[in-house]
Amino acid sequence: MSGSAPEWHRKAYSVAAMRAMARRALPRPIFDFTDGGAENEYTLRRNEAAHAQYELVPRSLRGSPARDLSVELFGKRLALPIMIGPTGLSGLMWPQGEIAAARAAAAAGTAFCLSHASTCTIEDLAATGIAPRWMQVFIYRDRGFTKEFVERTAASQYDALVLTIDNQMTGNRERDIRNGFTIPPSFSPLDKAMMATKIGWLMRMGPALPKLTFGNYVRAGQPMDMKTLAAKMSEMLDPSLSWADVDWLRTLWKGPLILKGVLHPEEAAEAAKRGIDAVIVSNHGGRQLDGAPATVDMLPRVVEAIGGRIPVLLDGGIRRGADVLKARALGAALCLVARPQLWGLAVAGEAGVARMFDIFRREIDRAMALMGITRLDQLGPDDLRKAG
Amino acid sequence: MSGSAPEWHRKAYSVAAMRAMARRALPRPIFDFTDGGAENEYTLRRNEAAHAQYELVPRSLRGSPARDLSVELFGKRLALPIMIGPTGLSGLMWPQGEIAAARAAAAAGTAFCLSHASTCTIEDLAATGIAPRWMQVFIYRDRGFTKEFVERTAASQYDALVLTIDNQMTGNRERDIRNGFTIPPSFSPLDKAMMATKIGWLMRMGPALPKLTFGNYVRAGQPMDMKTLAAKMSEMLDPSLSWADVDWLRTLWKGPLILKGVLHPEEAAEAAKRGIDAVIVSNHGGRQLDGAPATVDMLPRVVEAIGGRIPVLLDGGIRRGADVLKARALGAALCLVARPQLWGLAVAGEAGVARMFDIFRREIDRAMALMGITRLDQLGPDDLRKAG
Amino acid sequence: MSGSAPEWHRKAYSVAAMRAMARRALPRPIFDFTDGGAENEYTLRRNEAAHAQYELVPRSLRGSPARDLSVELFGKRLALPIMIGPTGLSGLMWPQGEIAAARAAAAAGTAFCLSHASTCTIEDLAATGIAPRWMQVFIYRDRGFTKEFVERTAASQYDALVLTIDNQMTGNRERDIRNGFTIPPSFSPLDKAMMATKIGWLMRMGPALPKLTFGNYVRAGQPMDMKTLAAKMSEMLDPSLSWADVDWLRTLWKGPLILKGVLHPEEAAEAAKRGIDAVIVSNHGGRQLDGAPATVDMLPRVVEAIGGRIPVLLDGGIRRGADVLKARALGAALCLVARPQLWGLAVAGEAGVARMFDIFRREIDRAMALMGITRLDQLGPDDLRKAG
Amino acid sequence: MSGSAPEWHRKAYSVAAMRAMARRALPRPIFDFTDGGAENEYTLRRNEAAHAQYELVPRSLRGSPARDLSVELFGKRLALPIMIGPTGLSGLMWPQGEIAAARAAAAAGTAFCLSHASTCTIEDLAATGIAPRWMQVFIYRDRGFTKEFVERTAASQYDALVLTIDNQMTGNRERDIRNGFTIPPSFSPLDKAMMATKIGWLMRMGPALPKLTFGNYVRAGQPMDMKTLAAKMSEMLDPSLSWADVDWLRTLWKGPLILKGVLHPEEAAEAAKRGIDAVIVSNHGGRQLDGAPATVDMLPRVVEAIGGRIPVLLDGGIRRGADVLKARALGAALCLVARPQLWGLAVAGEAGVARMFDIFRREIDRAMALMGITRLDQLGPDDLRKAG
Repeated sequence: MSGSAPEWHRKAYSVAAMRAMARRALPRPIFDFTDGGAENEYTLRRNEAAHAQYELVPRSLRGSPARDLSVELFGKRLALPIMIGPTGLSGLMWPQGEIAAARAAAAAGTAFCLSHASTCTIEDLAATGIAPRWMQVFIYRDRGFTKEFVERTAASQYDALVLTIDNQMTGNRERDIRNGFTIPPSFSPLDKAMMATKIGWLMRMGPALPKLTFGNYVRAGQPMDMKTLAAKMSEMLDPSLSWADVDWLRTLWKGPLILKGVLHPEEAAEAAKRGIDAVIVSNHGGRQLDGAPATVDMLPRVVEAIGGRIPVLLDGGIRRGADVLKARALGAALCLVARPQLWGLAVAGEAGVARMFDIFRREIDRAMALMGITRLDQLGPDDLRKAG
Repeated sequence: MSGSAPEWHRKAYSVAAMRAMARRALPRPIFDFTDGGAENEYTLRRNEAAHAQYELVPRSLRGSPARDLSVELFGKRLALPIMIGPTGLSGLMWPQGEIAAARAAAAAGTAFCLSHASTCTIEDLAATGIAPRWMQVFIYRDRGFTKEFVERTAASQYDALVLTIDNQMTGNRERDIRNGFTIPPSFSPLDKAMMATKIGWLMRMGPALPKLTFGNYVRAGQPMDMKTLAAKMSEMLDPSLSWADVDWLRTLWKGPLILKGVLHPEEAAEAAKRGIDAVIVSNHGGRQLDGAPATVDMLPRVVEAIGGRIPVLLDGGIRRGADVLKARALGAALCLVARPQLWGLAVAGEAGVARMFDIFRREIDRAMALMGITRLDQLGPDDLRKAG
Repeated sequence: MSGSAPEWHRKAYSVAAMRAMARRALPRPIFDFTDGGAENEYTLRRNEAAHAQYELVPRSLRGSPARDLSVELFGKRLALPIMIGPTGLSGLMWPQGEIAAARAAAAAGTAFCLSHASTCTIEDLAATGIAPRWMQVFIYRDRGFTKEFVERTAASQYDALVLTIDNQMTGNRERDIRNGFTIPPSFSPLDKAMMATKIGWLMRMGPALPKLTFGNYVRAGQPMDMKTLAAKMSEMLDPSLSWADVDWLRTLWKGPLILKGVLHPEEAAEAAKRGIDAVIVSNHGGRQLDGAPATVDMLPRVVEAIGGRIPVLLDGGIRRGADVLKARALGAALCLVARPQLWGLAVAGEAGVARMFDIFRREIDRAMALMGITRLDQLGPDDLRKAG
Repeated sequence: MSGSAPEWHRKAYSVAAMRAMARRALPRPIFDFTDGGAENEYTLRRNEAAHAQYELVPRSLRGSPARDLSVELFGKRLALPIMIGPTGLSGLMWPQGEIAAARAAAAAGTAFCLSHASTCTIEDLAATGIAPRWMQVFIYRDRGFTKEFVERTAASQYDALVLTIDNQMTGNRERDIRNGFTIPPSFSPLDKAMMATKIGWLMRMGPALPKLTFGNYVRAGQPMDMKTLAAKMSEMLDPSLSWADVDWLRTLWKGPLILKGVLHPEEAAEAAKRGIDAVIVSNHGGRQLDGAPATVDMLPRVVEAIGGRIPVLLDGGIRRGADVLKARALGAALCLVARPQLWGLAVAGEAGVARMFDIFRREIDRAMALMGITRLDQLGPDDLRKAG
């Protein structure tokens, strides 16, 4: 696969097809890490299933000679209504995975958000000049450590800061436990044998694996490898995270500040009140609290609670262009895609992520044409119907 | 199968059984072309499943000594409440497929609608004298090309003109992509080997395949074969289609003008207001916008929006006589069947389509008898119940 | 199986287990005849599934020292709230099947209804002295033939007359078509070979098969065998059946007259108005109009429409004692069981039907005890809950 | 397994995983006894499925530095919001099963309820000093026998008395019938051969099996073994159980008196009115009346009917920490777990039950952290959402 991958990915005609290719390309513990969720994976499944509960009712005769897929956010235009959300360990999918994905996003005219658990550093990405670039931060027990992250992000001129609020204690991801994809890893001999069958991945990643590390943490003066640091990272997070921390962060960071992991309408309303610039309706892709609602099920109530004061973004189960249209019709400004981008990376690096954007672009464009619209802001509740 | 087919089809006791026979008779890429839908095939499945959401509540003691299955449309009687809707490439199922199907429809006392993408021409069908005959048209970027189609249709004395509005950009039909049933085709060696096992189909169609073409387009001065024209056909369609085009078409065509592909009640109301003669509630058999609602789910709202001004027709998932009764009870004047007719053709040509009409006629007649009615206009909302 | 059958049936701990035994004992075309329904078998499945939509909410502390399972109907007590409904061809399950089943019903203290299509005659059953005995009749094109049935029923002192109204045209039972269980039969060599593996059934039924006939029709001066008569029987039924016929029958028969096959509340109300003594809410076990609602889904509306003027009985999908309690709580006076009795017959003749009654008696008694009631008339809407 | 069991159980990362281990460890008739329910197992399945109908909506920014998992009941603190409910025959899972489970409960800081059908006696458990300890009693035909149980319970200084009201007639557990797990047992040779493959269980339990007995009954002057006593036990229970018996029991027992098996809101209200100290919303784990609602479906109505006068407890389908949070949000003070504790016993005795408590503790703690709460009484209806 290694050699032919750049061609192979062109056969991916959908995100589902790209996922199937990634499943073949990746060692199973790594694929499961990209694919799985917490406990019974109820929330994981609901995220996707909930999109199907909404139906799009076209009005073909409105005329859509050419579609404009762009959206405005924080006064700037993105060429697409999707961007890449933060995912840890992208560098396990493809060498320099984060930068590969960011390049593809920039080429597609949209934004990329770097994960705190990236294998490159805040500065590495900035050095490429790729933009718009967003950075994810957490609140640590040691607030100074958070402050350092924010200052580095500011120094590297990122466009937005994303505070993830739903991961202060790591979710109970049982596929990872079963696969030994834990900290430290405990792969069985069988797993290791299976890994050896993924030749393409091994050839690409083999040399890099021993040196792989959490770049941002190393840079931050924590010279640790993936085994020890990941465990520590978890301990470093502070479950006492509260609105006071958000207010404090607001004083540290002058640019757009975004809360990621909002589901409750009250929490959304509070965010708008406290000067946050946007919220991302998210349940961490079903990887944290299993039993939490699908994001699209909460979206209308969050949109109502915010009442237009700030933009509402959404992630979770976005697999088709039509999903993006539904989210827009329900009031989302923009959707974040995470797993599809990992699968794209796993299949063909930057070219695979570019392919993912191609797929979404064509699906969004076609769905707009078939809905009879030319701009995304034409979508509203009247274009949707609850199924059944 | 070739020799015994004319007998074989008599064993088809239901549309589902006929579909199973067609699956055995046709090369897989061709069967999938008749059977598949867009993307996740959500809308395809919903079309069929939504009929099951309505239940028929019989009143046996109303007396139904003999049932009259006829319906009136545009001042004329059709012997059945179903007719054949337009399907491209019927000529791939059986030599001269469109004319075979039209003969069976005429023999059954009902109408046939020719597809723009037929293998015979507008004039070929007219020359047979088969009636009633309807013609499907599209709005092309080159409006003169549309005008030519309309003029040919008028010159050939067709009974109605059907403007399809939901196909200005072709749907994302992934079974066709997987099967290489694309323009141009890219069948794998395995596919080709599989095709060779469909002896009956090969013997019938083999000689005709190289000469097969889109008749109407050739006639219209576009001497192209199936490979190149289909791609071009798609480019020719104009996504800027709007009400202005409908008004223009209304001035060109004096007979019954029908909009096919209406789902939104507002669009239906607008059609009635603009002098259209009928609408067909359709989602293109789930082949266009995946995520669109089932047609029968939109039917009551469309009927309400139109308020009796013009007839409402419906296609999508009609597989049983009872489905037709349900649609009638919800306000549809007539149903169009498309896939069942292709399967009939694939199994035994004209005799197969005749068999399909037999199956529907017997199922509709029996369902009417069991409902205790003698005429279809006795059906109303009081005969239905939402399931569950 | 033939020898051990009388013991074997004691292992049937539920109706479902008895059905599994019958499936093993009977040739497949015959089992499918007992088990199948019309077309997609939607109504067949709904009958059973709809019972599960209601939940029983116990109040254990009401005290139920001993349960009285009896019900009153037409001024008499039946020991159980179930009786045997009319089923054709019971004689194919076991020699003299109808009389065997009737004996078991009488032994259980409840009623038996003879089918018009029984293999014994009206007089044969009467000669056994088994009571209460009910007789099913139809309205034939030749009303004199119906009159003759009614007079024979009166002469043989039956306790009630049941007019079946939902079978004037035979349902579209596709399992029977597939199996060749049609009139005339067309079993394939494979079917015949399979039949030969059902040794017990062949030994019991083999000698009787050539002589098997529809007793009532022979007696009525129609000396025909099963092949020719069944086809004729279907032709004899008059689809113009209406309320006028019901009124006429009311003048012919002085005893309790019952309409079987009522689903629509309006039809039920009309029956009460016209002096009918009871209605049976039935969809013919899902064997007639596929797409008709489950009987228990219509029960509350029928009960409401009748408003206590006459008793409401129910059949369809009764497989557990709890189903009977639910029907009682929704207003049914009594339930008819049909398929379970055929399965009992197939497994062990009279002993099998007795076993079926044992199973129901124990399940009803236990369910009453667990509900905390001593009499069935304690049940009401407050004991039920809609699931989900 | 026998030797390695104490290590093996540490691999159980969830209750479901522990169940899978128990399935491997136990002879099938015994596993099915722990796993099965009555008749169609509708209620069994609903118990688990109903929890999934509720979704938890987190508000991460409320700050949850450390979670307090304790709850107050009858003026005392339990360290966890779960306790062990009464289960018969725990001694079949592990030698001295009841005492092993009780030790694990006490170590976890919570209560244990002894079953009347335990293999140890009321006095045996008391002698260990384990507390809090509760005792389950029944109303027997011989009220003196009940009185003796109560007096022994008082003499042994139990903390609460639990009257089970939904088991006066034993449920129809068909897995046990199929497996021959009846009184007396009738295991097939195949079953016995299968049992022999469960080496660990056989080595542990083999020597004890012949001496195994229902301890409380023996002590109560009924020197019978498991075969004969179980049948008798069933006969001894009085289905005429009523509120008068509850009043009588109230006079006998001065401590906390709890009714277990309440589902109907009226019955719950009556309990509060008559001076009962708590009710347990329970359907006996789906082992009694099949068709009864899921406990969590009745919980809100019971809570409303009781109106805060006394605590409401719940059992049924609690398999995840999130299930406990949902029950708390709907008004339950505490949940009882029964099957999970049997599976824990089967896998590793006391260590297995301790592991079960570990799993729940971690899941509850994590779910609280992710919900953003520090105490369970922060949960309310606003934290829940009905799914779909």
